[in-house]
Order: sequence, then structure tokens, then C-alpha cells
Amino acid sequence: MNPETSMETATPYAPVALEFWYEFGSNYSYLSVMRVKELAEQYGVPIVWKPFLLGPIFKSFGWESSPFVLQKEKGAYVWQDMARECVKYNLPWKCPTSFPRSALLPMRVALLGADKPWIVDYNKRMMQVNFVEDLDIDNEEIVSKVLTELGLPASQLIAEAQSEDNKRRLRAQTETARQRGIFGAPTFFVDGTLFWGNDRLQDALIFAAGLKILPLD
Amino acid sequence: MNPETSMETATPYAPVALEFWYEFGSNYSYLSVMRVKELAEQYGVPIVWKPFLLGPIFKSFGWESSPFVLQKEKGAYVWQDMARECVKYNLPWKCPTSFPRSALLPMRVALLGADKPWIVDYNKRMMQVNFVEDLDIDNEEIVSKVLTELGLPASQLIAEAQSEDNKRRLRAQTETARQRGIFGAPTFFVDGTLFWGNDRLQDALIFAAGLKILPLD
Repeated sequence: MNPETSMETATPYAPVALEFWYEFGSNYSYLSVMRVKELAEQYGVPIVWKPFLLGPIFKSFGWESSPFVLQKEKGAYVWQDMARECVKYNLPWKCPTSFPRSALLPMRVALLGADKPWIVDYNKRMMQVNFVEDLDIDNEEIVSKVLTELGLPASQLIAEAQSEDNKRRLRAQTETARQRGIFGAPTFFVDGTLFWGNDRLQDALIFAAGLKILPLD
Repeated sequence: MNPETSMETATPYAPVALEFWYEFGSNYSYLSVMRVKELAEQYGVPIVWKPFLLGPIFKSFGWESSPFVLQKEKGAYVWQDMARECVKYNLPWKCPTSFPRSALLPMRVALLGADKPWIVDYNKRMMQVNFVEDLDIDNEEIVSKVLTELGLPASQLIAEAQSEDNKRRLRAQTETARQRGIFGAPTFFVDGTLFWGNDRLQDALIFAAGLKILPLD
């Protein structure tokens, strides 16, 4: 056994994975999608990508839209907050002229790519289309354009994304989100512990890296 | 003109005040009440204390209680989040057995003290009674105990707090909160710009200190 292996064995807490639950229609998911890869690498934490649909979650609460639409006082604030957050994180930002944007097709494609290397860039590009280019994202034209830019077989992936099996998988993943107590996006799970919101991304990574033990209840 | 005065004049952005809107029944206000004085001093930012009542704000949205009670999924999460936040900020914490606690009398006393030096310690003590000692706070006995501990004339202050004039002032301050778009607590105003939540306290102070210009919309 060489000293390096020995040191690794002696590490009290091996990093566990960060489950990253996100939605392309969610503005606070945009912040995390743009930040998570680089930040997770700093902490040595692997990411498990968990695309899901927010709409059915909100419907299960009896809501017909995003709380940012339904509660107008909070809605008015959110766009000021987003502009400031993007300055803070040095991210481009254009307030969307349509919100929340439907993201069914791009989320189905994300589910296909969740365990592929291209998921990182695909997520970022779809988010930029929504929150920087201010364009609708739930159509074949834009999804095809993004996939092609990434050098991927767009027609094939879109056909696969729209297969009954893949549609069923996204519904099942969304139902899992609901059952696990997810009530918004982004949400992070680390070893069964839920962290909600871009504001908790770093805390979740610190917890995943085992740098600090946080109480579980 | 001495050099010191000259340097002060040359400062491009003089710090402006942080308006701190808070409620003793609000758990996230607890985090900010315990942190704000020391943090604001680091940034050289003066604090304007703005006690108000959350209940009438929530009622104006048609809510009969806190959203943490009304939305059970978020409610379940909030107490895990609070425990972790208190570890992060090194604050004591006991999950309240009653939530949200009515805080009418202590808030009326806070309004009386808002421009007095004792407001800082009074705020902290009332918050600790609610979120560390897990005791009801809306009664004369506990408010009197806290004021007496601080070396203040408890009976006189409580009588003054319950005067018609002071009651009217707290109602007016709460109505001002509603009109200015406050939808939760804690809320910070800096030069007319709203920051919501303990998670934005430091951003609000950075903005107040003029260290970084954030976009206003």
C-alpha cells in the first residue's frame, strides 16, 4: 500500500454524490445549472442529473402556475432578485417575456442525456435560450438546433425522447420528486437529505464533501 | 480641511442605511436579528430598525397562517433548513413547539425601542425566548422579564407600548410594509431597493456600503 492510498483510506468522509433536480422553465434552476459543474468539481463531488417537471408538482398543490405568477408581490421581486443574482455570479441575464416557459420536450431530451457527457453543455444551452436569448424552448426546432450545435444526432435523440418509454420515465421521475418531498426547483439531495434552492447549492456540496456535518433534522 | 475629511469626501459611495424589517414570530428573522448588527458594523452601514406584523400581510394575501404551515411540503423542509442554518451561523436553535407564535406585545415594545440603543439586545433576547427557549412571547410576563434583565423600566414601557397611539403606529408601519411590497420577513430596504430573506442580508449590506453596484431592475 503506497502512502497516497493510505491517506485516501484514512479520509473520514468520502464525498457522496449531489443529486441535482432541475427544470428548464425554472429561473432559479438557471443559476444552479450554470454554476453546479465547476462548483462540484472544486469540492470533488460527483453530480447525478435529475431532470423533472415542475408543473405536475405545482398542480399537486392545487396551483395552476408558478408561485411567482400566482403571488404577484413575490413575482415582482423575483425578477429584481434574478438580475442581482446574475451580477453576483457573473452570468448573462434577460428577463423572460414569457414565464414560466413550458419545457416538456427539452426535459425529455435531458432525461435521455442524464448519464451522458453532453448533459452539462446541453443543460446550459437550453437555459441560455430561455433566460438569455428569451426564446421559447418547447419546440423541435430549438432543441434540434442546440443538439446539432453540440455535434449530436438531433433527429434521432428527439425521436427517442418522444418514445412512449421515455415519456413514461419522465412522468415516473416527476412522481418520485413529489414523493420525496420536492416542492420547487432547483432541489439537491445528498444522501437522502433535501436542500432547496440555488442559495443552498454550496451548503449541499459542503455536506456532500463531508467537510462539515450538518444536523439532519 | 484635514486629510481624513478629504478622504471621506472623496469616497465615491457613502454607505446608506439598511432598513431592517422583522417580526419576532418569523424564524428566518431570527437568523438576521442575531447577525445583522455585527455584519452591518463590518460594512460600516447604519441600521434603521423596522418592526412590523407579518399576520396582516399574510391576511392581505388571503392566508390564515404562515406559508410554512399552509404548504406542508415546504413546512417540513423549513425546520431542517433552520437547524442547518443555525449550525452554519453558529447560533443556538430549538425547533419551536408552537409556530408561528403571536408577537403583538413584543413587537409593540420593539416599535417603542426602534430608535433606542437597547433595541439590539431586546430583539436578540425576544428571538432567543421564541427560538432557543421555545416559550410563548406574547405576554406581559416574558416581555417584562426581558426588559428588566436589560435594566429597563418594564412596567412603564409596556404601558406605553399598549397606548392607543403606539398601537396605531404599529398598524401604520405594517400598512407601510404592505404598500412597499413586503411579502415576508426578514426584508431589507436599501435606498428604496428591496432584498428579501436572511439569504440576502449580506448582499443588501454590500449594496448599502456601495461596494458593488447591483442593477435595480
